[in-house]
Amino acid sequence: MKSFIEVKNDSDFPLQNLPYGIFAKDENEIPHAGTAIGDYIFDLTAAEKKGLINSEDTAGKKVFTNGTLNEFMSCSKEVHREFRKIITSLLDENNPKLRDNKELRSECLIKMENVKMQMPVQIGDYTDFYSSKQHATNVGIMFRGKENALMPNWLHIPVAYHGRASSVVISGTDIVRPKGQTKAEDAEMPSFGPSRLLDFELETGFFIGKGNKLGDPISIENASDHIFGMVLVNDWSARDIQKWEYVPLGPFLGKNFATSISPWIVTMEALEPFRIRGEKQEPEPLPYLKSSGNNSFNIKLDVYIKPKDSDKEELISESNFKNLYWDIYQQLAHHTVNGCNMKTGDLLASGTISGPDKYSYGSLLELTWRGSEPIKLSSGDELKFLRDGDELIIKGYCQGDCYRIGFGEVRGKILPAK
Amino acid sequence: MKSFIEVKNDSDFPLQNLPYGIFAKDENEIPHAGTAIGDYIFDLTAAEKKGLINSEDTAGKKVFTNGTLNEFMSCSKEVHREFRKIITSLLDENNPKLRDNKELRSECLIKMENVKMQMPVQIGDYTDFYSSKQHATNVGIMFRGKENALMPNWLHIPVAYHGRASSVVISGTDIVRPKGQTKAEDAEMPSFGPSRLLDFELETGFFIGKGNKLGDPISIENASDHIFGMVLVNDWSARDIQKWEYVPLGPFLGKNFATSISPWIVTMEALEPFRIRGEKQEPEPLPYLKSSGNNSFNIKLDVYIKPKDSDKEELISESNFKNLYWDIYQQLAHHTVNGCNMKTGDLLASGTISGPDKYSYGSLLELTWRGSEPIKLSSGDELKFLRDGDELIIKGYCQGDCYRIGFGEVRGKILPAK
Repeated sequence: MKSFIEVKNDSDFPLQNLPYGIFAKDENEIPHAGTAIGDYIFDLTAAEKKGLINSEDTAGKKVFTNGTLNEFMSCSKEVHREFRKIITSLLDENNPKLRDNKELRSECLIKMENVKMQMPVQIGDYTDFYSSKQHATNVGIMFRGKENALMPNWLHIPVAYHGRASSVVISGTDIVRPKGQTKAEDAEMPSFGPSRLLDFELETGFFIGKGNKLGDPISIENASDHIFGMVLVNDWSARDIQKWEYVPLGPFLGKNFATSISPWIVTMEALEPFRIRGEKQEPEPLPYLKSSGNNSFNIKLDVYIKPKDSDKEELISESNFKNLYWDIYQQLAHHTVNGCNMKTGDLLASGTISGPDKYSYGSLLELTWRGSEPIKLSSGDELKFLRDGDELIIKGYCQGDCYRIGFGEVRGKILPAK
Repeated sequence: MKSFIEVKNDSDFPLQNLPYGIFAKDENEIPHAGTAIGDYIFDLTAAEKKGLINSEDTAGKKVFTNGTLNEFMSCSKEVHREFRKIITSLLDENNPKLRDNKELRSECLIKMENVKMQMPVQIGDYTDFYSSKQHATNVGIMFRGKENALMPNWLHIPVAYHGRASSVVISGTDIVRPKGQTKAEDAEMPSFGPSRLLDFELETGFFIGKGNKLGDPISIENASDHIFGMVLVNDWSARDIQKWEYVPLGPFLGKNFATSISPWIVTMEALEPFRIRGEKQEPEPLPYLKSSGNNSFNIKLDVYIKPKDSDKEELISESNFKNLYWDIYQQLAHHTVNGCNMKTGDLLASGTISGPDKYSYGSLLELTWRGSEPIKLSSGDELKFLRDGDELIIKGYCQGDCYRIGFGEVRGKILPAK
């Protein structure tokens, strides 16, 4: 299966992927919806306008006109599958319809480098889970000692908290170092100033397609009907602010200054070939959380830093989505079991995804063990936490035979506190 | 100052109040915006359409046409003040314009009993504070003992957590008892079932008018420019679910099954005459949180229960907004000091407002001291936590000379778990 558009073997966006995004060619125009193919974007808004995508083939209405993907995402799985077939066929090397129509091609195919990616979704609510056992254990050891590392509830519940939706930003957005209240262990009173322990968190997130009504839980069997696709997430964290504020109601200002996401939503259909069995769960979860089959995904996740005053991206962690203990179907079933309602466009993130060893941890807190074991950069500098000017990049992809289903990247540079 | 519409002395909605709400006369129509006056609603959408409210007098555009107040709320304080003058004048007993025009009156004045109130605002993010010292102390004593009642950060930070915006519902919405995972103190494993410790929380909340950009904090001096008005809030809580899940990331499913708000947003202009000095803060807060002057409000808050199988509302608590330790300006300044952005329509709730004595506590958890001191109902029944069929009502008002600035009520009835 190949497209008439050239796609290199290591491209994130072969014909098998077709992730959805929102992009702007021109600041004065409502942004368009598109799907990525090689180095190009297939402009779905233009294609819809040109009648290349027949509205009746989608949901019987124009869904790509208002600058977000929400309307399309709210359609049923059947509509999504049908639509995927249509664009796959349009971009196929054997289909002359678009391939041989120069005018249509120039209208509907745009070089990625010529546009600016936008927030793909109007997010209603944002929830952040805490589903990597290794991460929860690492943090537990650092803050509470080895004996009490995992909280008693952790193996029974996909623990989560509500995050802030307003400050979820698109990859490439600069991150201003937050100021806040902190208290040193030995200080009598708290003080105020720029965070000194600024960190990233390597995460993924999934978007809700069709929602549910308040009071009607989504069962684990039906969970996949409501999950549209996934993105990379960097849940920026100010550890010093977080530490002073988080007991007893959880993280707040230590997190809500910014959360970055990658611009392309990779659909669950594209990820299907990369299903694998998740971690064995012991003790067995309660029936409403019982998940069977291959409910995890083999997604390689790499973290790079481009240190201040450097042009080079240096790899600092290699993790994998499969390191998660709780799967996305369990997360969604748990979140709604009390009747909580999901809306189209809600974002549910995984929590930091740390692997079993030091080189696969998903935060500087863990990679440098609270700053006590700094990372040696190629310049000779030691990295403990993020410095002004540092740029953090997360990349992710599934490796198939001679093709990749890639997520692209989520990137953000630290600016000094104002 | 009087309206030509009759307003009884104990009405919540005299000419001095003019709260904003959204109501539906007809299910098939986009709901209208209105302001309450006595037993009537002045239909702002109709008035705007009739030219009775000149668009140029507001923000130069029709703001009341899309079924939420967000667009109006996003205008500046000056626009809001100017608009308040205009509707005050239109409803004034000495102004013949509306008073003597029978046709206009029949178009624009609607009996409250003939409409159904709707969610007034499209809420982006919902934050819940924890700003009553008495409440935090009570909960602390119950869960951690007298010595560690108040957490070390509590007197320095207006502690808060992110709530769930999707499940904020309008007064009158039935509340289905949530199911969830709980674990009895002496049980080895958690179990699943309907919550047995369902509770209310007496709160108020304020809505953001004009927002701020990500990275640009709202200073405490400018906070009032961004606060549109207030409502009553009942933050329903399943104490057993909350207890098992909340360490270390805070409340989640114990809260996000429902939060009820009263339908009328009382503006800060209407509350102005009821300013009073808040509680003395010791130790003095850090400079960014320093609040001076009369930054609290004297708002009487009463809680009633209409027990299952009863027609009678029984008073179970009398509290007051002035019992809050942290004021709303401090809450907003703190929330944004790290650069977190507010959007028009965001809801920031106070947390449970408990007064100094047992009859002024804002939750059953405190009123019955975890169920150990049940409330004696007039039927002879003992009330520990909410039962199926119980209806909980919170009312609130400021008492002026011969008039009240009232909030109406927030009400919800418990339905059995599904």
